[in-house]
Amino acid sequence: MIRKAKLLKVYVGEKERFKNKPLYQYLVHWLKEQGIIGVTVFRGIEGYGQDKVLHSARLLELSSDLPIILEIVDTEEKIDSIVVEVSEMVPKGLVYTVSVEVHKEIQIFPI
Amino acid sequence: MIRKAKLLKVYVGEKERFKNKPLYQYLVHWLKEQGIIGVTVFRGIEGYGQDKVLHSARLLELSSDLPIILEIVDTEEKIDSIVVEVSEMVPKGLVYTVSVEVHKEIQIFPI
Amino acid sequence: MIRKAKLLKVYVGEKERFKNKPLYQYLVHWLKEQGIIGVTVFRGIEGYGQDKVLHSARLLELSSDLPIILEIVDTEEKIDSIVVEVSEMVPKGLVYTVSVEVHKEIQIFPI
Repeated sequence: MIRKAKLLKVYVGEKERFKNKPLYQYLVHWLKEQGIIGVTVFRGIEGYGQDKVLHSARLLELSSDLPIILEIVDTEEKIDSIVVEVSEMVPKGLVYTVSVEVHKEIQIFPI
Repeated sequence: MIRKAKLLKVYVGEKERFKNKPLYQYLVHWLKEQGIIGVTVFRGIEGYGQDKVLHSARLLELSSDLPIILEIVDTEEKIDSIVVEVSEMVPKGLVYTVSVEVHKEIQIFPI
Repeated sequence: MIRKAKLLKVYVGEKERFKNKPLYQYLVHWLKEQGIIGVTVFRGIEGYGQDKVLHSARLLELSSDLPIILEIVDTEEKIDSIVVEVSEMVPKGLVYTVSVEVHKEIQIFPI
């Protein structure tokens, strides 16, 4: 029942936009369209990235630009097939993958 | 001081129930009973799983079924000894493991 | 464009303090001073660690000591150079690392 899969993590800012939508919401819809099996979105309470500006729920004026993180899990082949395109949609964010062992069979959906 | 350990991640829905309790709360208590060293629970702001239904804090009518994620860390042997049972308790969720390197000694408690 | 990097995860309690500051806030500032490329902080909704005391947003009296998790990503060399010092600042928490593949080049900043 154990199967190699990949976790794709994407870090963006809550305020970033893409094609007139919040970037993270655009990504969730785009990933669903690609047939990706599962996506979970988290909001962090603070953080900074390559611009070195701290965004924090403690700092009221920046509260609407908190870190947003997407966790995307699918087969290695499926993740490998989308990671370049995802990276291009996230010019300022961080994109990385980790190999994981799934302990329940992943059902592959047709796109 | 570095020691191989395993991270076990479990994704469930906030509304899922098991033995008359919310499933994630049941899991936390069950994991504690098994002597698992550490468990942390997160609530996502949106996501979808194999049913392809988007649950989002933005969609009010579904706000009570947000993604819930458990991060469980223990020795490889301990995680391997519980993962099948955990998977059986989570029929609709995702369960995967990742090898990690712990940089502080994990103290093993008697069960 | 793929590059080996390391994710460093640190689990602390929201109430823990270090040098008259909340520990997690102290850590974020210290990591920024070390030139670490990216740090994201999350608050969990419940959890327990080695003391086996459950901290939960459901239990009002403990609501101010929820789990706080830092995700820190940088090159392997950079993470290896700070992990011992980070572990020393986190006497009660959990510290582990995972190798990841970054799909966008990490720009290294001077300290």
